[in-house]
Amino acid sequence: MKHNFGAGPGILPHEVLKQAAQAVVDFNGMGLSLLEISHRAPEFEAVLDEAVKLVKELLEVPEGYSVLFLQGGASTQFAMLPYNLLPADGKAAYVESGVWANKALKEAKFFGEVEVIATSKDSNFTYIPKDYTIPADAAYLHLTSNNTIYGTQLHEFPKSPIPMACDMSSDIFSRKINVADFGLIYAGAQKNMGPAGTTLVIVKDEILGKVDRKIPSMFNYKVHAENGSMYNTPPVFAIYVSMLTLRWVKSKGGVAALAQENKAKSRALYTEIDRNPLFKPVCAVEDRSDMNVCFVMENPELEKAFLKLCDDKDIVGIKGHRSVGGFRASIYNALPITSVHTLIDAMQEFQEKNK
Amino acid sequence: MKHNFGAGPGILPHEVLKQAAQAVVDFNGMGLSLLEISHRAPEFEAVLDEAVKLVKELLEVPEGYSVLFLQGGASTQFAMLPYNLLPADGKAAYVESGVWANKALKEAKFFGEVEVIATSKDSNFTYIPKDYTIPADAAYLHLTSNNTIYGTQLHEFPKSPIPMACDMSSDIFSRKINVADFGLIYAGAQKNMGPAGTTLVIVKDEILGKVDRKIPSMFNYKVHAENGSMYNTPPVFAIYVSMLTLRWVKSKGGVAALAQENKAKSRALYTEIDRNPLFKPVCAVEDRSDMNVCFVMENPELEKAFLKLCDDKDIVGIKGHRSVGGFRASIYNALPITSVHTLIDAMQEFQEKNK
Repeated sequence: MKHNFGAGPGILPHEVLKQAAQAVVDFNGMGLSLLEISHRAPEFEAVLDEAVKLVKELLEVPEGYSVLFLQGGASTQFAMLPYNLLPADGKAAYVESGVWANKALKEAKFFGEVEVIATSKDSNFTYIPKDYTIPADAAYLHLTSNNTIYGTQLHEFPKSPIPMACDMSSDIFSRKINVADFGLIYAGAQKNMGPAGTTLVIVKDEILGKVDRKIPSMFNYKVHAENGSMYNTPPVFAIYVSMLTLRWVKSKGGVAALAQENKAKSRALYTEIDRNPLFKPVCAVEDRSDMNVCFVMENPELEKAFLKLCDDKDIVGIKGHRSVGGFRASIYNALPITSVHTLIDAMQEFQEKNK
Repeated sequence: MKHNFGAGPGILPHEVLKQAAQAVVDFNGMGLSLLEISHRAPEFEAVLDEAVKLVKELLEVPEGYSVLFLQGGASTQFAMLPYNLLPADGKAAYVESGVWANKALKEAKFFGEVEVIATSKDSNFTYIPKDYTIPADAAYLHLTSNNTIYGTQLHEFPKSPIPMACDMSSDIFSRKINVADFGLIYAGAQKNMGPAGTTLVIVKDEILGKVDRKIPSMFNYKVHAENGSMYNTPPVFAIYVSMLTLRWVKSKGGVAALAQENKAKSRALYTEIDRNPLFKPVCAVEDRSDMNVCFVMENPELEKAFLKLCDDKDIVGIKGHRSVGGFRASIYNALPITSVHTLIDAMQEFQEKNK
């Protein structure tokens, strides 16, 4: 078994993968693969129903919200969101906390005016911008809850006079959130929820249908909401694996219990980074992410040797993003704390060797 | 083992499913699931490269075309196609040969003028419209090569003075086509190519970039072509299973060999439908599909009993679409001729019982 610190598509629980593999050969004892049954079969409709139910239960989604499983990833949402919510003569407010936030706001510009109300671009996104005023006349405020590349996380959401839309791709189900504070939440599955190929959207029904623009069916949240994510053939397998992962989240005690574990994992790792003289953190202490822990070396020449040591210990996926360098340990829900301890042990062993 | 006549998501080769299940647990001996590795890992890049190479080889795609694996299904293409190719002040020509063609043309209306140049709606789509003139001033002609619901198939494509776009979702890789005759071909994977969740697009590069409209990145063919389908995280698993299926197509002798087998399967079944006094065909003889064989009963009261007999013989997915009724036997590439014989035997046994 590898210790998978990859940033995404990321680690999934072992038991989920075993069940998913079984379903590819024979689903539910049907004598058929999950891949070759109709999405209208009652057996799959039960999967989709359970996935939606688990999202509602685990995140305590209030009445008045639709829970959708759509095709594609967050990149599609970057465009779908303004397509549905940004009037051609209106504007949207974006907080630019990283490259993904930047991509999101660029797509919004195809549909209307974009006001970047805060950015940490000047410091290569090493912190979360917090000091800003939300324009009351904007259609919505867009945030990114966790920035995988830089290892920063929004620990406290602002109070907003306008609907908040948030990209939670890399920390959904890792902690409690108050869904009622948001107009729309979206999350590509491939970090904390499932394989690449589906995106979770949680949208407050009353914010939809307010732009004049005509929206083609597949890009229209209302169409998907009215058809229970079954307007078209949904990505059956990706939804099934997501459902299995949500079952696993529930079996672990839900998001509150996982949040505690995640905090224990990140604390242990940040403590070692702060202690070990060979390593140093890259971002603001108060914005440190519990999902992606980024760090570099005091002496970059040692990086290769440390990567080699990690490789020897079956620690994989730890190389940092090219725009930050160094290392990035993604410690998503499914990563056991034992893997974090293995990494810490490697860091300490490396320190011994390089005294 | 079931005899899977489902219309889609449809049957996949047994050996493909076995390999796919293995990859979900441990991909390529990496000690990691295919679902939890980066799409930038060389191991997945090799999968995508091979998938593209196999498409080019199997369909003899000429130079000047891009082969893309996109998110979503054909429904997304219904909108993406006009988004990229239909100028706001231009028009597109559509042949309405079924409900899916109708859905495609409805989405095109969001972007420009649509001229329905032929339709068989008056006869509930029991034939393929053939007698039409293609307007030389339209941006493109849209066709549907196979109509799953009605069991009709376009056996000869028209000569077109304008780029031809074709939805080949339900018969791609089932027969030889001359790609050079088309401007754009698209096909949702879940009939003849793989699981739901990815769509194959083959597009002639020179027809792109000609509309003035600004196109968001994820809806822009040019962006996907320039990034080799890796602009965003692609649907890794669906592409992998498609690649395995394409390998299988090649191992069977390619599309020409499969076309022969498909013809043998459909002939055997149509012969029985024509011979057996209990059953009758539903569509024009010259337009009969080699992929979806639709038939009804002379006495509809016997339908339930026949379905029961099929069920006893592990024949599944044979119920006709509600808009046609009766039965639909989808006999995609992966369905062995022995399954067709089992169905024919059941029809003959049923005739004996109901003498």
